[in-house]
Amino acid sequence: MSEKLCKSMSLLWGAGSPPCWRVMITLEEKRLQGYKRKLLSFQKGEHKSQEVLELNPRGQLPAFRHGDVVVNESTAACLYLENRFQSQGNRLIPDSPAEQALVFQRMMEGLTLTDRLNSVIYYDLLVPEEERHDSTLKRSKETLSTELQLWEGYLQNAPTWLGRSPWQMWSFIQTLRLLSAGRFPKLAKYYSLLKERPSIKASWPPQWMSSRQGYGVLKDL
Amino acid sequence: MSEKLCKSMSLLWGAGSPPCWRVMITLEEKRLQGYKRKLLSFQKGEHKSQEVLELNPRGQLPAFRHGDVVVNESTAACLYLENRFQSQGNRLIPDSPAEQALVFQRMMEGLTLTDRLNSVIYYDLLVPEEERHDSTLKRSKETLSTELQLWEGYLQNAPTWLGRSPWQMWSFIQTLRLLSAGRFPKLAKYYSLLKERPSIKASWPPQWMSSRQGYGVLKDL
Repeated sequence: MSEKLCKSMSLLWGAGSPPCWRVMITLEEKRLQGYKRKLLSFQKGEHKSQEVLELNPRGQLPAFRHGDVVVNESTAACLYLENRFQSQGNRLIPDSPAEQALVFQRMMEGLTLTDRLNSVIYYDLLVPEEERHDSTLKRSKETLSTELQLWEGYLQNAPTWLGRSPWQMWSFIQTLRLLSAGRFPKLAKYYSLLKERPSIKASWPPQWMSSRQGYGVLKDL
Repeated sequence: MSEKLCKSMSLLWGAGSPPCWRVMITLEEKRLQGYKRKLLSFQKGEHKSQEVLELNPRGQLPAFRHGDVVVNESTAACLYLENRFQSQGNRLIPDSPAEQALVFQRMMEGLTLTDRLNSVIYYDLLVPEEERHDSTLKRSKETLSTELQLWEGYLQNAPTWLGRSPWQMWSFIQTLRLLSAGRFPKLAKYYSLLKERPSIKASWPPQWMSSRQGYGVLKDL
């Protein structure tokens, strides 16, 4: 990768955002480390700043540019980077049709997992107090628990896709360490493998999990 | 496409399901018309039958198989089919990196649109009566309206991606016809173009929109 190409890449990101991290890990995996990046603060509302809105009309992070190409949705950015730099760094989408199908399948299912996780850990943040119900949160927890058991089964039956394109798992790595290893032993083992992956170590956001606010809700899962 | 290959494909589907339709349209676009398909009834709970669960542990439709490859998540199935049959039928992912980025971006954003649509039109179905709030539904409608305005803008500024990979729009085609053409003229025009697309005409589910139940909620959007 020439230095020039990397300089034509820029990423606006926020700490603790799985979509941002997904793109950063992919950049590491593709050995595109020289890009320009800028950390913005969600707390200060910097994701709604003019700088972001010019790239991303949704006012969300990541906001990613490569030359004239702007691609902000994180999975879309990962697909773009993998296709554009196929022969560089690690291949994240394998050639074999069967393996490819599995990677796409888990990549998309990973978004469902993230949604189900978010509806539990961000319940108080997303729902105004007067609209909250214990029964809603209880149901969301049950749905998340079922979802995690499904992934536990995936890891039991077909661990080969793991090393290839673990986009789907990166997005909830921060939660895995808070789950009971006893109930989800395969997920716990996978988490311990992911933690040691160079791309993940290199991009681990410094602020990530400095606060555990909101995660107590997972204790009884 | 040999008849033999098509015979190795099977699809379990449900009428009125945008994910099912997305896969069926892609099969049409790739000229894979000879596959085996079976219509199941959501009302009768057939999506939770053993036949489905063997292919799709989520008990959801579509359930799609191509030989030994099982890929059920609809966007994953579309990506798989496009990659596997790249030189057959219509190219749904263009070669140019810039166009490709745009197709991936809109494909993924289309899922957000679908989610926002579903949270309005299926509100009563998804939320038990004792947990419903007018304020929640009102906020969801505002979010949907903002989302649709965003797409209206996309159509204004960059209509070239439309013909290439309109997966993102197919998933809400049924709603476009119920929206006020006055407020969303670009979306209305796009809908009228999509309706005439051969792949869409060929796969239009017979039961689609025979009932308008739930769609009255969009009238005041």
